[in-house]
Amino acid sequence: MLLLNKIQDIRKNTKEWKSQSYTIGLVPTMGALHKGHASLIEKAKETCDKVIVSIFVNPIQFGPNEDYNRYPRTIDQDSKLCESLGVDIVFAPTAIEMYGDNIKTSNNNYTYVCPPYNYVDCLCGKSRPGHFDGVATVVTKLFNITTPNYAFFGQKDAQQLFILKRIVKDLNMDINIIPCPIVREDDGLALSSRNSYLSPAERNNALTISKALMKIKQLYSEGINDVNVLFDTAIATLNPNIELDYIEFRDFTTFEKVEKVGKNTLIAIAAKSGSTRLIDNIII
Amino acid sequence: MLLLNKIQDIRKNTKEWKSQSYTIGLVPTMGALHKGHASLIEKAKETCDKVIVSIFVNPIQFGPNEDYNRYPRTIDQDSKLCESLGVDIVFAPTAIEMYGDNIKTSNNNYTYVCPPYNYVDCLCGKSRPGHFDGVATVVTKLFNITTPNYAFFGQKDAQQLFILKRIVKDLNMDINIIPCPIVREDDGLALSSRNSYLSPAERNNALTISKALMKIKQLYSEGINDVNVLFDTAIATLNPNIELDYIEFRDFTTFEKVEKVGKNTLIAIAAKSGSTRLIDNIII
Repeated sequence: MLLLNKIQDIRKNTKEWKSQSYTIGLVPTMGALHKGHASLIEKAKETCDKVIVSIFVNPIQFGPNEDYNRYPRTIDQDSKLCESLGVDIVFAPTAIEMYGDNIKTSNNNYTYVCPPYNYVDCLCGKSRPGHFDGVATVVTKLFNITTPNYAFFGQKDAQQLFILKRIVKDLNMDINIIPCPIVREDDGLALSSRNSYLSPAERNNALTISKALMKIKQLYSEGINDVNVLFDTAIATLNPNIELDYIEFRDFTTFEKVEKVGKNTLIAIAAKSGSTRLIDNIII
Repeated sequence: MLLLNKIQDIRKNTKEWKSQSYTIGLVPTMGALHKGHASLIEKAKETCDKVIVSIFVNPIQFGPNEDYNRYPRTIDQDSKLCESLGVDIVFAPTAIEMYGDNIKTSNNNYTYVCPPYNYVDCLCGKSRPGHFDGVATVVTKLFNITTPNYAFFGQKDAQQLFILKRIVKDLNMDINIIPCPIVREDDGLALSSRNSYLSPAERNNALTISKALMKIKQLYSEGINDVNVLFDTAIATLNPNIELDYIEFRDFTTFEKVEKVGKNTLIAIAAKSGSTRLIDNIII
């Protein structure tokens, strides 16, 4: 396995691969890899001849009061995991390699890829202004650097997944976005690099987020599809110490709000446990 | 030569070419081809194994009161010219092929590529809000569809050229942007598809735009480099019936305004003759 941090070194390898008609899979990550990431990498290994994992904590997708500096960085551990999973290249660039000397980028001095505002100005985008522009921009850059045939994203970031599919379609990128299911701890907590921030008590309270989703799923399987009823049930299930940002019910094809849950409905929750912002969802 | 209007047909051809390691050159145009375009195509033929000319009047780069509907469309003539110049493929998609059913795109419902605002909110961008976002978006789409190694743009659209170079750099596109010199009529008028709108009198007045630039060039060669002096000379040279939008002096590496003309200074004029907006420039 190669651990590379220069764009030109990635290009050298991918050009060689392309010339031999190998298919390339990209798993974009911010590192602090867990079993959720491992499942993406395994899927990429199944699907593609060559697999690149990018590890880059992208400054431009964090707001000024968010956890960019605090975000866990565990590159040695991450590399070992990637090697053990048969990854061909780990791409771990610096912020300067990605954005040049002026890494304090803004729309004033840098080109941004801006997803449709209708899909950005809601759910996580509402409380994280600029976040999805930052995600769309870095993912476009990573796509252009690694030239993948397939790119693998977790369904946990459901809004991100929806938006990236739209970017690929709107900008005619010749890339297949492969969504991968959420991986959970035995007790239901969705895996996240940010779980490492949680105290035992905060973790315990956070468990009620996935419990609320499972409760909705159960009620739906019993024939209850009214969003108001399901919303109230979720609220009643959440620990009162959880600071709810949103519970949303949306059609995952159109991203429109729905009144009745049905096939392909995304039910997404964002909430803080202590100071840690967590997200989770199910798709019916 | 193939005349194609479906994205999937372009991909089939470019993939075949890539598998044979041919280099691809793209000349993006809005059609109504003239000798300026021909010079781009000739340069592409010299540089690349295979040449694609795209002909697409891009709705999203026109403002609501601009000439989208009136813009000249001469596809039969254009195809003949391309064939005579040895072009391999003319790509002439419909707006629906490029943007889907909802061609009334906006930032609300479509992904846009947004160049650095500092380079957009000046010169032509000032009087054409949204124009360069539209250009950046369609060019990114055309790049992703045709996967060129080289793309050829006229220096006449100097701000566009500067911005596209930045997009390629910022988004890590593996494409070489090749600038090509302005082609002029014998009397100095810069070739433009919009020249066809001009009445003989308007054309005559428009000639003073290139005359003003040549006057600046002459004075500079005589040792005058003060922008204020050169600006006044240009104003004095322009026919009073010309409605000036701007005369700007900028460093073509940084796009910063300059006080003294020197190596790599862009001197750009935009003005209306009658109702026709014309642009022209020189780079020292």
